[in-house]
Amino acid sequence: MNSLRKKYKFEISPQTVDFNYQITLASLTDLLLTTAGYNAEENGFGMRKLNEKGLSWVLLRLAIEIEKRPFQYETIEIETWIESVNRVSTSRNFCIRNNEGRVIGYATSNWAMIDNVSRRAQDLFTLDNIRAFESQQTVPIEKPKKLDSCNGEQIDQFKTKYSHIDINRHVNTMRYIEWVSNCFSLEHYETKKIKRADFNFMSEILFGDEVTIHFLNGVDNTYQFEIFHNGKTSCRAKLVFEEKSINAHHLC
Amino acid sequence: MNSLRKKYKFEISPQTVDFNYQITLASLTDLLLTTAGYNAEENGFGMRKLNEKGLSWVLLRLAIEIEKRPFQYETIEIETWIESVNRVSTSRNFCIRNNEGRVIGYATSNWAMIDNVSRRAQDLFTLDNIRAFESQQTVPIEKPKKLDSCNGEQIDQFKTKYSHIDINRHVNTMRYIEWVSNCFSLEHYETKKIKRADFNFMSEILFGDEVTIHFLNGVDNTYQFEIFHNGKTSCRAKLVFEEKSINAHHLC
Repeated sequence: MNSLRKKYKFEISPQTVDFNYQITLASLTDLLLTTAGYNAEENGFGMRKLNEKGLSWVLLRLAIEIEKRPFQYETIEIETWIESVNRVSTSRNFCIRNNEGRVIGYATSNWAMIDNVSRRAQDLFTLDNIRAFESQQTVPIEKPKKLDSCNGEQIDQFKTKYSHIDINRHVNTMRYIEWVSNCFSLEHYETKKIKRADFNFMSEILFGDEVTIHFLNGVDNTYQFEIFHNGKTSCRAKLVFEEKSINAHHLC
Repeated sequence: MNSLRKKYKFEISPQTVDFNYQITLASLTDLLLTTAGYNAEENGFGMRKLNEKGLSWVLLRLAIEIEKRPFQYETIEIETWIESVNRVSTSRNFCIRNNEGRVIGYATSNWAMIDNVSRRAQDLFTLDNIRAFESQQTVPIEKPKKLDSCNGEQIDQFKTKYSHIDINRHVNTMRYIEWVSNCFSLEHYETKKIKRADFNFMSEILFGDEVTIHFLNGVDNTYQFEIFHNGKTSCRAKLVFEEKSINAHHLC
């Protein structure tokens, strides 16, 4: 049973933290994706192996719940495993622990395998041994939500540039999370903390595309986002914050 | 003599590479600054030690020459040492080697120490033991150039956001280099490689500042930049590229 779950350690490096010395949501997600990459590689169906066959993994949905984002130089451990596999997608879970071994967060994600040329989803059952890693083990957080269009106001607009583009020649996942995180002020991050984030990745953005970001400030510290490229929806996101602590309030 | 020079190894991680699988100039600079940080820490005058006294290091100028930017998963070794120290600034050099131990680049930098509140330069001779590390050992590249205003055309404009701001609550050095690197197309990076980069850091940019980037396409693959915030010069840069190789030309 245990061989289906693997743990990887990371030190939170200075270039991944925000002005509060805490890892950004984008960089935390990057560690989750790095963990997924390491584990898939070890299991025999990593990106390098898939690329040899002209295939790639594509992240469809992601949900993260975090108690407190870890600080610079902290060591965290991310445990990962595959929950389920069907022909069109697979779900991979994560458990994040601090350096005392206490659980500080969970994440859950859905992935498809696409053909690099046609960009269409391929049958996961054609992958040699992936079903041997199906654990049916869940995480105690809600599955990644299917998000609706938020009809929010346009809050940002720009063209994609060199630094947004990764080896797959499209906008890297981290950038979407960075763009969404950039819709808040420093004061917001001083008084509130991220509790849960949901992302739906719907279509890829290429170099030079015109991006607009739409934002809806909802009730109960819930914020919704929709990222468009050339008028088409690329990503939807929902972030739930909570007040940092009662003590912090008393200090105000 | 050798104790004045220290070497640090880094693996080029996937999140630091561009669409060509090569480390970006911004991330390479970040490794140089990380190296400087490790070495200053070991020598007893690192950022943490300075912060305890309400002081910080500030990068004034930087020059990098690189033969070829290393690829994802390559291991590189960065050697660093202090060349000289005077009351207002100190120069730190770097030698970059590939995993076969061959030199692939050099960098040289000037730093001042400032008071965190007044933001004014402090006398470096008040630092306990920094002069013991003065090696007078140079690197075989030109010192960082003092750059003039480029009077170029405005190529970008935006407000600084959450992801641009670091623990010092100003725009992080890496961002300037990213902004400058973003002025080129993917085709540019496919056909040309960076040979030398010079940066002058002149004033800090804060959250919400209006940034404009000015660009001058000069002769001989030389490009000049000036970054303004709220109308004031913050950074000047000069990048020199060269054609990738004669073979690549023949393929065109």
